[in-house]
Amino acid sequence: MTEPAKDTPDWVAADWGSSHLRLWLMAGPARVLARIDSDAGMAGLARDEYEPTLIGLLGDALPQGRALPVIVCGMAGSRQGWAEAPYAKAPCAPPSLSRATRVATAEPRLSVHILPGIRQDSPADVMRGEETQIAGLLAARPEFDGIACLPGTHTKWARISAGEVVSFRTFMTGELFDLLSTRSVLRHSVAGTGWDAPAFDAAVSDALSRPADIAARLFALRAEALLQDLAPQVARARLSGLLIGIELAAARPYWLGQQVVVLGADAIAGAYGAALRAQGVPAETADAEALTLAGLAAAHTHLRKVQPWPAN
Amino acid sequence: MTEPAKDTPDWVAADWGSSHLRLWLMAGPARVLARIDSDAGMAGLARDEYEPTLIGLLGDALPQGRALPVIVCGMAGSRQGWAEAPYAKAPCAPPSLSRATRVATAEPRLSVHILPGIRQDSPADVMRGEETQIAGLLAARPEFDGIACLPGTHTKWARISAGEVVSFRTFMTGELFDLLSTRSVLRHSVAGTGWDAPAFDAAVSDALSRPADIAARLFALRAEALLQDLAPQVARARLSGLLIGIELAAARPYWLGQQVVVLGADAIAGAYGAALRAQGVPAETADAEALTLAGLAAAHTHLRKVQPWPAN
Repeated sequence: MTEPAKDTPDWVAADWGSSHLRLWLMAGPARVLARIDSDAGMAGLARDEYEPTLIGLLGDALPQGRALPVIVCGMAGSRQGWAEAPYAKAPCAPPSLSRATRVATAEPRLSVHILPGIRQDSPADVMRGEETQIAGLLAARPEFDGIACLPGTHTKWARISAGEVVSFRTFMTGELFDLLSTRSVLRHSVAGTGWDAPAFDAAVSDALSRPADIAARLFALRAEALLQDLAPQVARARLSGLLIGIELAAARPYWLGQQVVVLGADAIAGAYGAALRAQGVPAETADAEALTLAGLAAAHTHLRKVQPWPAN
Repeated sequence: MTEPAKDTPDWVAADWGSSHLRLWLMAGPARVLARIDSDAGMAGLARDEYEPTLIGLLGDALPQGRALPVIVCGMAGSRQGWAEAPYAKAPCAPPSLSRATRVATAEPRLSVHILPGIRQDSPADVMRGEETQIAGLLAARPEFDGIACLPGTHTKWARISAGEVVSFRTFMTGELFDLLSTRSVLRHSVAGTGWDAPAFDAAVSDALSRPADIAARLFALRAEALLQDLAPQVARARLSGLLIGIELAAARPYWLGQQVVVLGADAIAGAYGAALRAQGVPAETADAEALTLAGLAAAHTHLRKVQPWPAN
């Protein structure tokens, strides 16, 4: 067996979502040799395009004479993805590698494992990818007992206790914001960037106190732009506040009097944090990308238990 | 002056909205010679394209030796339209022809009048086109005292009394339904046609009793499709019911204990009628297209008072 090149990874962590693919080339359990971002998301790939996509991105990083473990989370494991990784059923711990789907590849130097998502039967709900962030949170804080809020296109609120996801609920808040701000009549009135913190806070408060008014308050953004020259960045903050506010109204059982960690380090996560603090909830934040990697590393640790480091 | 051809119209009624243009060629106050539908809506037209569009559609119907009155309602009168017809301010009667904007045309055989919409300052709101349906309702029932519900992309609820629009409120319900069913993740789970009346009724009731849950109930449509094979036509009826239900929750002051007329004869108007009846409101329905024409005819009657039938 040949000696591996200096920077040949020991394994690869992969977050393969609907619209993006992120690879980390790893040395040992936790050292990142390289990070690769691609827009080759699951939504744009046919089943037979996953393997060539992965090989093309890995390039010279593919080792000689051994199979490179690739641990995948996210939508690549959906029924329409690379290979279905059937959901684990809540309440349950974030699925470990023993529940992963092993993908048959034509390339023998790949050993691909896709981690399952989690399903909940009542109310019906699903997650794929977020369970790995939660695994990362639990790897760092095994005793965590509280709520993880995972903002995104489909924001999740998950109740976590004794190392398990007890229950969760998904809100289409991010997707509604995108559709309304770019595809609806509001696109004329809502800026693509910019922010107004007082407008956001007031909108959160309005939506929390009168959630049913949402569809009328949305059109009012247009009307105020026409009649009262509402500033587009104020409209943007207010739109976000209305949608997050109505979500908080429905998610109240998840955050009222609870320990909440917002998994995210971007502007949206910041907005959730601000909205929660305004309700008297001292939400912490954590870096979602780091947690995803930590969750994949935790799964890889399990792989090492059954497949110790190769002797190459 | 030449005798007009047998089918030359006396005037033209025009409903010129964002996405469509409908012309009625009229003989005398109320007889329809022809009806022309076009997709040349305001959203796709530059300012200098309106006149050629109209002339092209009228063709031989343009008379010789006189100007053909064209009475227009709808978005053609917006700031981005053909010529701005500044809003009347509620409370007010539906604007009459005396408030219309006279459009200068290169073609001397056209005499174009665009009717204004109505604005409301608090809460900020606007309508363009719906005021003409209300004018049609009032032309038939001058003593009407109650609520007009005008379902559509942007559904309006208008309080009408003593011949005036007293107040109104707009909900983005139709646009939300279109975006969610065709552009969001729900497009995989929601049928383009089909219906399930019990699912609609249950969703209206759910949304009325817990309006804040809307963003979670939306994603549940996706999750139930994945986990429980929710039928796409059931998902469609439930999506409609959730959105109409949350609208009814916010519009309660408009319908509770009121006389309600739903202006519309299509499936959406039928859904609003069913939802209202389930709440104990015996909503009538009226044909929106006929009311638009009646409203334009009422405006034309005013024109005849100042410009009697030409003697040609």
